[in-house]
Amino acid sequence: MDLGTLAGQVRQVTGLAASMRDMERILAALLASEDIWRIVELAGVPLLVVCAGLHCLAEAGWVETTGSAVRLTQDGEEGCARLRIAPARALACPRCGGRGVELGLLRELEAEFHRLVAGRPEASQEFDQGYVTEETTIARVAAMWAKGDLEGKDLLILGDDDLVSLAAALSGLPRRVAVLDADTRITSFITAAADRAGLSVAVHEHDLRRPLPSALRSRFDTFLCDPTESLQGFLLFAGRGLSALRGPGGAGYLGLTHAEASLAKWRAIQRQLLEWGTVITDLHDRFHSYVNWPYVEMMRAWERLPVRRAPGRLEPWYRSALLRIELVAEAEVELGPVAGDIFIDHEAATI
Amino acid sequence: MDLGTLAGQVRQVTGLAASMRDMERILAALLASEDIWRIVELAGVPLLVVCAGLHCLAEAGWVETTGSAVRLTQDGEEGCARLRIAPARALACPRCGGRGVELGLLRELEAEFHRLVAGRPEASQEFDQGYVTEETTIARVAAMWAKGDLEGKDLLILGDDDLVSLAAALSGLPRRVAVLDADTRITSFITAAADRAGLSVAVHEHDLRRPLPSALRSRFDTFLCDPTESLQGFLLFAGRGLSALRGPGGAGYLGLTHAEASLAKWRAIQRQLLEWGTVITDLHDRFHSYVNWPYVEMMRAWERLPVRRAPGRLEPWYRSALLRIELVAEAEVELGPVAGDIFIDHEAATI
Repeated sequence: MDLGTLAGQVRQVTGLAASMRDMERILAALLASEDIWRIVELAGVPLLVVCAGLHCLAEAGWVETTGSAVRLTQDGEEGCARLRIAPARALACPRCGGRGVELGLLRELEAEFHRLVAGRPEASQEFDQGYVTEETTIARVAAMWAKGDLEGKDLLILGDDDLVSLAAALSGLPRRVAVLDADTRITSFITAAADRAGLSVAVHEHDLRRPLPSALRSRFDTFLCDPTESLQGFLLFAGRGLSALRGPGGAGYLGLTHAEASLAKWRAIQRQLLEWGTVITDLHDRFHSYVNWPYVEMMRAWERLPVRRAPGRLEPWYRSALLRIELVAEAEVELGPVAGDIFIDHEAATI
Repeated sequence: MDLGTLAGQVRQVTGLAASMRDMERILAALLASEDIWRIVELAGVPLLVVCAGLHCLAEAGWVETTGSAVRLTQDGEEGCARLRIAPARALACPRCGGRGVELGLLRELEAEFHRLVAGRPEASQEFDQGYVTEETTIARVAAMWAKGDLEGKDLLILGDDDLVSLAAALSGLPRRVAVLDADTRITSFITAAADRAGLSVAVHEHDLRRPLPSALRSRFDTFLCDPTESLQGFLLFAGRGLSALRGPGGAGYLGLTHAEASLAKWRAIQRQLLEWGTVITDLHDRFHSYVNWPYVEMMRAWERLPVRRAPGRLEPWYRSALLRIELVAEAEVELGPVAGDIFIDHEAATI
């Protein structure tokens, strides 16, 4: 058993772009934890690839499961030593959670935001939802502030089960906050919460499969979006965001996971974003932590896990990077309406 | 005076890609500090653009200098208010300096590294040198460790006035550390220091204008390089690094500034890196702090500064991002030998 053989087996089983380095990452994670969700988090490769990799490793006698533990056998440990694989390391700064950003005055928002979002709509599989922790939301607002994309700016959130619009409006820093969502539960909740707190948030019910309403095109300085991660869906959401920007100097914030996107997909996304006239100015891996959604046992990957233990609500395994792009040229995005399912591709795991 | 007019004037004076957003960043920095080097750091735009921007702002009566202070006039302050420009914010986490990474066991290296690099060669303008602080070097090694690119790996440093090779070897984590440099002062220093400390570092004197020696091609897991920042020079160094990697899964670390590279240049660099088969996995802006070099008063931008106060040795203004790329396909780099000056382009400021 070597990494090349293993990657080949995984590609055969899944049809996914699984690399030798992905296999190395799975083994490095196994050297660091026996907990399935921690292994998934540490590996940082598509969940379906982790599942298939663990399956192939078990077949080869390198991995065994005992109760809910997933662990290397002696053969597996010897194999890792022979392949010079080191355990995955968690070296995130404990103060900022590895995000690098200090909340500053925004820390004072936390309690108010917490009260405001109590009773929020639960994540819905229909819209491929899954929201980030409240701490993550505030940190994201701080990141925008630090980059000069919040204070005095016009901000559009495309899809807001994270309720970033409320946190941003609470900060009092943006000139204007607008939000689009296809889910009436979300739009109603934001409208009611904003009313309650006396915040100005313009809420629009809109399905991003359709182009933006013309009143929202070329009207914003900053957009934020945590897209669905099929290649088509991601680019569609990002493209809609770019069409909302006034022009060069406008910035976009996007979430992107490893759990549902291989590095090959990351590359395809990045090439298109650059092609559209943007530059990548910041990419913070594992910036976002998500609250586990209630449909974890209904998700596509569930049946393929080697041990089926539902993660605790705040047991982080689904992380995403924060990607900031900035237009350096006029946006060249031509995206008409699209039809059908935009949520699924080979690597989608949670749908 | 609006941002568009100002950007147009700067473009005319400098011939550089100066955007309205760049002008906004200069004004945001002026709202936050009166110190020229702090303004340069906070603005995060090419130094020559800052110089020209401040010049045009002074002509327009928005900026005045008093002694070594550079400050907005009342007209300037009113203009900023009218344009809704907010002060630049420094929200970096104080524990990790915004890098997001914890040093962990590497913190124990700090004292030893400090002793080992005492008496290091001073930065030379001939090779466009300028080294990062010792703290930055250790943090960079920690970042590689956290990403699984250090422990058990073969590491190549291309150009090493930062002496990363010594810090990496001191950690005891890599399988192999090799270093290339064109400057015999650097190669001799590293050789002697490694001998003194009983470290294994393979040192090669090599000018990166020539392709890598065949014995170093396709032999490494990780490369690190802090390239000169002309577009040609940056890509040349990055391409040489990629040619040292074994293949997909191999990673490269590169430093990239705002002081000498516009976002338009960042985009051109990123497009080429993606074209060559890599993906951008991490991009931490302002990761690196530099020790001020002795030739600051000889650098190209010096005469264009509105106030000519040499910065203190550890007064940080020259920062760079840490960019991590990973090959997801076989590297497609075809770079033969090049001749002539690779250090200069329109945006180069320190040469």
